[in-house]
Amino acid sequence: MARLLKGKVAADALNEKLLERAVAMCEEGTAPTLAIVRVGENGSDIAYENGAVKKAQQVAVAIEKFICPADIREEDLMDIIDFINCNEKIHGILLLQPLPKHLNSERIRNSIAIEKDMDCIGDGSLAGLFLQKKGGYAPCTAESCMEILKYYDIPVKGKKVVVIGRSLVIGKPVALMLMAENATVTICHTKTTEEDMALLCKQADIIIAAAGHRNTLTAEMVRPGQTVIDVGINFNEEGKMVGDVDFEPVSEVVEAITPVPGGVGSMTTTLLMKHVIEAAEKTMEK
Amino acid sequence: MARLLKGKVAADALNEKLLERAVAMCEEGTAPTLAIVRVGENGSDIAYENGAVKKAQQVAVAIEKFICPADIREEDLMDIIDFINCNEKIHGILLLQPLPKHLNSERIRNSIAIEKDMDCIGDGSLAGLFLQKKGGYAPCTAESCMEILKYYDIPVKGKKVVVIGRSLVIGKPVALMLMAENATVTICHTKTTEEDMALLCKQADIIIAAAGHRNTLTAEMVRPGQTVIDVGINFNEEGKMVGDVDFEPVSEVVEAITPVPGGVGSMTTTLLMKHVIEAAEKTMEK
Repeated sequence: MARLLKGKVAADALNEKLLERAVAMCEEGTAPTLAIVRVGENGSDIAYENGAVKKAQQVAVAIEKFICPADIREEDLMDIIDFINCNEKIHGILLLQPLPKHLNSERIRNSIAIEKDMDCIGDGSLAGLFLQKKGGYAPCTAESCMEILKYYDIPVKGKKVVVIGRSLVIGKPVALMLMAENATVTICHTKTTEEDMALLCKQADIIIAAAGHRNTLTAEMVRPGQTVIDVGINFNEEGKMVGDVDFEPVSEVVEAITPVPGGVGSMTTTLLMKHVIEAAEKTMEK
Repeated sequence: MARLLKGKVAADALNEKLLERAVAMCEEGTAPTLAIVRVGENGSDIAYENGAVKKAQQVAVAIEKFICPADIREEDLMDIIDFINCNEKIHGILLLQPLPKHLNSERIRNSIAIEKDMDCIGDGSLAGLFLQKKGGYAPCTAESCMEILKYYDIPVKGKKVVVIGRSLVIGKPVALMLMAENATVTICHTKTTEEDMALLCKQADIIIAAAGHRNTLTAEMVRPGQTVIDVGINFNEEGKMVGDVDFEPVSEVVEAITPVPGGVGSMTTTLLMKHVIEAAEKTMEK
């Protein structure tokens, strides 16, 4: 059985340091503050919001909620974001998505100031990641993969990493972050042949499964000694949450693996808070 | 001996079509026009400019030169770019680089309007490539690799491609373009181990050598059946122009290879003109 790379353990270690930084700032009169913008009463939005609020309390980050009716006018939502962008007491924005269909999601995402875009949902933030510019924040899920590898002392420099999935939300950003840490990265996707996928995965030192389909990575595609990071969130026939990896058989073969749930996802809200604290620290440097 | 993928042959085929499109536009009263902005009298700038002017003549693209003194003030150069950005009769800008050191190159590059940035030198154009947004143009050298593969009927979909080099100018853009065409792409770089580089190259169907060092790809790293695209421009001890590939021995092994000179580089100014013609066509659609 592989070593389990638990996100919560890595997150707890980081939470402690974050709390210290937030308390230090509060003592100097600045409370790191996150605005959560939610449109409507979607259950999974509220669940995510509650998770974020709980994590914020643990690390002394203040939350300001902006709850909007499901039928809010686009201009009114833009005004709210503009208000937050200009508000010096709020350091970051979390906009819960997807937005209702009557809203121009792209326009709204891109109206968030880069320095307050805590989960890299604006094009400017993503572009900054590609162009290696400072000032923005990485997507929390992609960063979570990196942080888990770092926490568990799994080196990436000079290692062969296969990323399965080429989305702008996770596949491409995590590939860029791995490359910036000097990994040799291959991106596989739906048009990669089965044969190549198996060959490349088997050769890899680290596999990041971010395809969005369960059983994307099976036991035949892995070998002893590997690390597997599972980014997927899917549900099986019994309604149980599972990742992109065929967990039981794969974990019998590889060296280390993140569980789902309890892996990558357990780290994301901690990184969200890290971004808020960093954003607050930057305003104090000015 | 491998089949030689000559850039000039591919370029000539494209030139013919471009000439037709440009002539058709001229007949409707719009002459596709490129502004060349050169600062100072650098020999290699002038050589590149002369090549572009010659190519423009072949495909009926008009050139307007803006030759600035080497000690031009930054604001004056910004004014010139602003003038071109606003000039409806000029469809594209080629800014010769590198600029003299007293100028803020980043600021000047990024002042070029995306729709007139013919060689993807502004951050907005590069970001657009990453975000898969329409409106900008790909870097001519990266596109040249793609066009040569296309002209010589070498499929990329579902193929394993290794890109050697991770620069923002060529390695990353060409990797994105290959991925958009459904290739399975691995990016190798200076921190890739020698062993992995040899393994991955040998497995690949197509190798794009864009490391910027000669003899980066040697005969031991290749096998029969492969296609090699050499993006490098280096000079050997005798001052002869060579690519990143150890040409003679590699060409004895692989199936097809671009020569240097006469390969990728022979296609770039043609693609520059293609961008100007496309930009002009877009203004007519309005």
